[in-house]
Amino acid sequence: MPGSSIGERLVLTSFGESHGRCVGAVLDGCPAGLELSERDIQYMLDQRRPGQSSITTQRKEADRVEIISGVFRGHTTGAPIATVIWNTDQKSEAYDELEHVPRPGHSDYPAMIKYGKFNDHRGGGRFSGRLTATHVMGGAIARKLLEKALKVRTISYVTSIGKVSVQVKPPKTSKPVYSNDVRCPDAAAAARMRKAIVSAKTGGDSLGGIIESVTTGLPVGLGEPVFGSLESDLSRAIYSIPSVKGVEFGSGFAGAASTGSENNDPFRIKSGKITTITNNSGGILGGLSIGTPITMRVAFKPVSSIPQKQSTVDTKANKPAVLRVKGRHDPCVVPRAPPVVDALVSLVIADHAIQGGFIRGVL
Amino acid sequence: MPGSSIGERLVLTSFGESHGRCVGAVLDGCPAGLELSERDIQYMLDQRRPGQSSITTQRKEADRVEIISGVFRGHTTGAPIATVIWNTDQKSEAYDELEHVPRPGHSDYPAMIKYGKFNDHRGGGRFSGRLTATHVMGGAIARKLLEKALKVRTISYVTSIGKVSVQVKPPKTSKPVYSNDVRCPDAAAAARMRKAIVSAKTGGDSLGGIIESVTTGLPVGLGEPVFGSLESDLSRAIYSIPSVKGVEFGSGFAGAASTGSENNDPFRIKSGKITTITNNSGGILGGLSIGTPITMRVAFKPVSSIPQKQSTVDTKANKPAVLRVKGRHDPCVVPRAPPVVDALVSLVIADHAIQGGFIRGVL
Amino acid sequence: MPGSSIGERLVLTSFGESHGRCVGAVLDGCPAGLELSERDIQYMLDQRRPGQSSITTQRKEADRVEIISGVFRGHTTGAPIATVIWNTDQKSEAYDELEHVPRPGHSDYPAMIKYGKFNDHRGGGRFSGRLTATHVMGGAIARKLLEKALKVRTISYVTSIGKVSVQVKPPKTSKPVYSNDVRCPDAAAAARMRKAIVSAKTGGDSLGGIIESVTTGLPVGLGEPVFGSLESDLSRAIYSIPSVKGVEFGSGFAGAASTGSENNDPFRIKSGKITTITNNSGGILGGLSIGTPITMRVAFKPVSSIPQKQSTVDTKANKPAVLRVKGRHDPCVVPRAPPVVDALVSLVIADHAIQGGFIRGVL
Amino acid sequence: MPGSSIGERLVLTSFGESHGRCVGAVLDGCPAGLELSERDIQYMLDQRRPGQSSITTQRKEADRVEIISGVFRGHTTGAPIATVIWNTDQKSEAYDELEHVPRPGHSDYPAMIKYGKFNDHRGGGRFSGRLTATHVMGGAIARKLLEKALKVRTISYVTSIGKVSVQVKPPKTSKPVYSNDVRCPDAAAAARMRKAIVSAKTGGDSLGGIIESVTTGLPVGLGEPVFGSLESDLSRAIYSIPSVKGVEFGSGFAGAASTGSENNDPFRIKSGKITTITNNSGGILGGLSIGTPITMRVAFKPVSSIPQKQSTVDTKANKPAVLRVKGRHDPCVVPRAPPVVDALVSLVIADHAIQGGFIRGVL
Repeated sequence: MPGSSIGERLVLTSFGESHGRCVGAVLDGCPAGLELSERDIQYMLDQRRPGQSSITTQRKEADRVEIISGVFRGHTTGAPIATVIWNTDQKSEAYDELEHVPRPGHSDYPAMIKYGKFNDHRGGGRFSGRLTATHVMGGAIARKLLEKALKVRTISYVTSIGKVSVQVKPPKTSKPVYSNDVRCPDAAAAARMRKAIVSAKTGGDSLGGIIESVTTGLPVGLGEPVFGSLESDLSRAIYSIPSVKGVEFGSGFAGAASTGSENNDPFRIKSGKITTITNNSGGILGGLSIGTPITMRVAFKPVSSIPQKQSTVDTKANKPAVLRVKGRHDPCVVPRAPPVVDALVSLVIADHAIQGGFIRGVL
Repeated sequence: MPGSSIGERLVLTSFGESHGRCVGAVLDGCPAGLELSERDIQYMLDQRRPGQSSITTQRKEADRVEIISGVFRGHTTGAPIATVIWNTDQKSEAYDELEHVPRPGHSDYPAMIKYGKFNDHRGGGRFSGRLTATHVMGGAIARKLLEKALKVRTISYVTSIGKVSVQVKPPKTSKPVYSNDVRCPDAAAAARMRKAIVSAKTGGDSLGGIIESVTTGLPVGLGEPVFGSLESDLSRAIYSIPSVKGVEFGSGFAGAASTGSENNDPFRIKSGKITTITNNSGGILGGLSIGTPITMRVAFKPVSSIPQKQSTVDTKANKPAVLRVKGRHDPCVVPRAPPVVDALVSLVIADHAIQGGFIRGVL
Repeated sequence: MPGSSIGERLVLTSFGESHGRCVGAVLDGCPAGLELSERDIQYMLDQRRPGQSSITTQRKEADRVEIISGVFRGHTTGAPIATVIWNTDQKSEAYDELEHVPRPGHSDYPAMIKYGKFNDHRGGGRFSGRLTATHVMGGAIARKLLEKALKVRTISYVTSIGKVSVQVKPPKTSKPVYSNDVRCPDAAAAARMRKAIVSAKTGGDSLGGIIESVTTGLPVGLGEPVFGSLESDLSRAIYSIPSVKGVEFGSGFAGAASTGSENNDPFRIKSGKITTITNNSGGILGGLSIGTPITMRVAFKPVSSIPQKQSTVDTKANKPAVLRVKGRHDPCVVPRAPPVVDALVSLVIADHAIQGGFIRGVL
Repeated sequence: MPGSSIGERLVLTSFGESHGRCVGAVLDGCPAGLELSERDIQYMLDQRRPGQSSITTQRKEADRVEIISGVFRGHTTGAPIATVIWNTDQKSEAYDELEHVPRPGHSDYPAMIKYGKFNDHRGGGRFSGRLTATHVMGGAIARKLLEKALKVRTISYVTSIGKVSVQVKPPKTSKPVYSNDVRCPDAAAAARMRKAIVSAKTGGDSLGGIIESVTTGLPVGLGEPVFGSLESDLSRAIYSIPSVKGVEFGSGFAGAASTGSENNDPFRIKSGKITTITNNSGGILGGLSIGTPITMRVAFKPVSSIPQKQSTVDTKANKPAVLRVKGRHDPCVVPRAPPVVDALVSLVIADHAIQGGFIRGVL
């Protein structure tokens, strides 16, 4: 497959552009019998929607999802589920000057080489963060499928913004995550993070951060050796989010500095079930789920669009240029990303649950 | 595809088990006309072979590769290239007691749940680090293809072992990497790392570490938005290596704590070519190559097999158990992993070069 | 992939239902730079549209295509091209009684077993001939791509309707095909076929027929041994058309009764180019194109919906039932199918042209 | 995937060449727990082995299969099953003159264009009928899996050789098929077919023929709309057999000349189960199995290698040439093909049984 699709048995195909007519998603492979309406998708889209607080972009994107196939009498039919959001608040003029002047940190330069003068450069086109709405559309369905069929649940939340970092106990519900606009379940830390974002914005700069994601309720044995490991497929999906530059599982990079006796998770029997005492593995051994929570941490680089002068080149004139990115940009996208991470994790886990025969037939 | 294959147009299919008759690889999609002999593969296998120094396992695995299809008159024919290593030095008795007593940190537990009593548990079976020999067999061919067709070159080397860490300037050739048995191009650091490994071994413990990988010479525009980004496909491949728990590109997790103005790489023209001043992006923007070096860092957890008592469970008796892993194990696998990283990076980049039309037809 | 997609490097994903909101298609992998507008697709849709003559169904389906992604400034961008037709003239009441009473010859019965009560049975749902509009949407783009990039051209036409059969010399343009509503380039035979259809309709019955398809202008060597042969991929695509029950290439079934000396096509040099004297191979040897015209014949069974009483079962009551299919059905779909065959052949050939490196990069 | 693999969840990857070191197959996706030994594969290989009678080639190919991975303690483990046959009786000299003189009817010409001077032309290389041994190796495993898990059974047999044709009632076992060396269950017809083959051989010519294949015991609902129909996937697989030029299901091409009232299969209840009175659909409606036998007919062209002078070209000298094919060739391959058809049908049906959740987990 070319690059617009992901998955083996539950396949998401993404289409659309930032400033085109729409962004859309087709999810193929969802079993028949899942109760589904636009509301199930809309609430996750609303979680990532901009314009909700002073720390995100002031663009107003209604982002109303429409299901245009695959649902009949309120349930999935087994046919591909197509969903679409019609674009409305696009202001493409701001991008006119960018056609030959690539913005540092953006896809502009390689895209103009790859697609030539035919590249839809407006708003980043196909490379825009806006395309993560298509991940959410497909992922919201996968999420509901997992919850209904297996009681599997993913919660993702912010643990770092810039240099403000916090260690949190994974929350049991998403409520504390969405109780503040930073999406950090630790309210005090959230306040500090918020301040850091406002300060970066004021200074004409931007910030990145880290999202932690925890998935509970998995059966043992999801994953397909040796190239379809859960880590392989999760990281592959997560790296489709623009700005992601690092993914680690369990003890991750820190674990690389520990010893085997520290990092191994001893097995034990608890309430009659085999589990581990610690969870440095992040719930995955040999690429397979072991039933403990899957824990993943995702690093987002700071937003590339900053209202400062930056050095670049004019590719038409083939000479140096100076650029000050205009438009309405988030000073930090991390608070909008937890639902995107939730969505992609759900897609991958649901796909593996189908591959492994844990979900099959009519629900 | 089930899990044993990876790639779109250059597909590696891995087969075999640690203690079965062989480990093997089929590489499909390599163009006709590449000069190829066993020697081209053997030298990379030799780089990962155990038994070469006191800091790696004392198992003697000759690991002689045989090409059994796809090569005629010393060149590839366009047909799938099958390669095989016949297993020789396997001692399976050490694993007899493990059939119902999963080793902490290993795939034993989820594998016995997934495959039941039919799982080939000997030496980790399909999940063994030995299977990375199949990655190397396919990757060595991809590596030669890339070098011949595009002058693309990957060099991977160790930058951390346990708590000993070093920052190195990427070496121009692999010579300094392979001039010591730690595979760290900084000889002084290598000595300290070596000491750390010996000390861990003496203490009945094990270490992990970090490998850095740098790929140069890429054309601009490799990668397929949005799910076939280079980061997606590279991380997916790398996570097929047992023990890998973290992958980051460019400034990675550290970059998440910086600001946009610090982390963006300004463009400039150098010797008539567009490039960037810094390389915090790791050579990838929007999932596409930009022509600067692709830089990736890979975190390996410490070896799970340690000669210490560990808590586990007897799954047959369903009660706690204590295990002391026997056998001849590496106290640290990281020094053996650079050729595996080289191989997988080469596979992914060569696949994308074919997808992008940069390599096509008869060589 | 689940079943809604076809192709390796040029992938068509189909969505929608006969009586749902729409039918749609996403084509991924089309290179940037192809001039494309709705008109390029609409003319092929018009060729298969019902309601055009007395021998096809009287349903009025405007079938107006909208391109909703992947085109910018009148050219493809390299991004997936999504197209959609909004359904308008659906009358679903006629299908109410069918929910538990499967129509002989239709997918109703296996679909109700496979998808249970969630199956969208209206108008055949996902199995309707209407879905071939999605093949045409994707295929019309592939067709234009092939014509532009390689001067490859497919012409498909009717050679049999019921027992009326004719042998025709492949026409050089599609003009004689579309000069009559039977789509047979032999006008006299077309008149007899038309009469047969009218007679079947009058008698409350239906007819099938045969379509021949000829593709010219191919380079030598398209196709990928051993499972990606042109015959494999063409037949696979063609069998996605409801009603198709036979596919043969070159001398096909008749050739099976001949001898090697009769059936072999001797090579010769003509105008400095190697070609064959006869074309019993249908332009394909060893699964690869040889540069001569690809000839394929496709058998369509008679339309299953007939206004006669037929024996069936009531699956709810689990007892025999008698059914007389209502609704507005074609007495023969074959005259509407040539553009569908054209479309699918174009998709497969274009995909192989991309796989083989004959089309690559920006057009 | 490039062309050497087929399947979605049960994937066969073929490697090797006619005159190389071996032919081999890797089957990935077979569940753990299937009892399997070389014998299970060997008996089907023996059925297709040449040198068994005066009407097939006198080449002696021992064709001893070795299982080199994926089986432990006599059962499949869930890991890929690699099988290999080492080539022994190859005489490549006969092919020396063919390197620049393509044989009519063979892949020689397009292969030399596609792969240039690197093509392994010996014995047809990758395009040889010998490669069907790899289909049989994978298919024999699929066949056993289907029989064990679902009691599904495929029997294929010869119904036409040249102009000798017979209609047979599908046999209940393969015994009457293999009771004569033509593989036709009608002994009298087999004798006439045998005579026709001997006569063709004596006359320095060759014959083709038709194989019918019947698969019983299928559950309802195998197949994935719209591009993963059973007809699509079966025909795709069957067209990987060299010489196949036609595939039809149920009433096929003949059905195209009938009427809807004649061709529709009325439903009825028999022994409490829904089934059809006739089986013109060949057991497939809407691309899905309906539980009645799947019937398919496959047309094989006459063998291309004939010991007669044929016109061809010398591609090096670029001038006409005359060729008399040497070597030991079958005058008719059809009697050796039933196990190949059995194998491919089994592969496709088993793959769909896994996709549909009918086979899953550990056996």
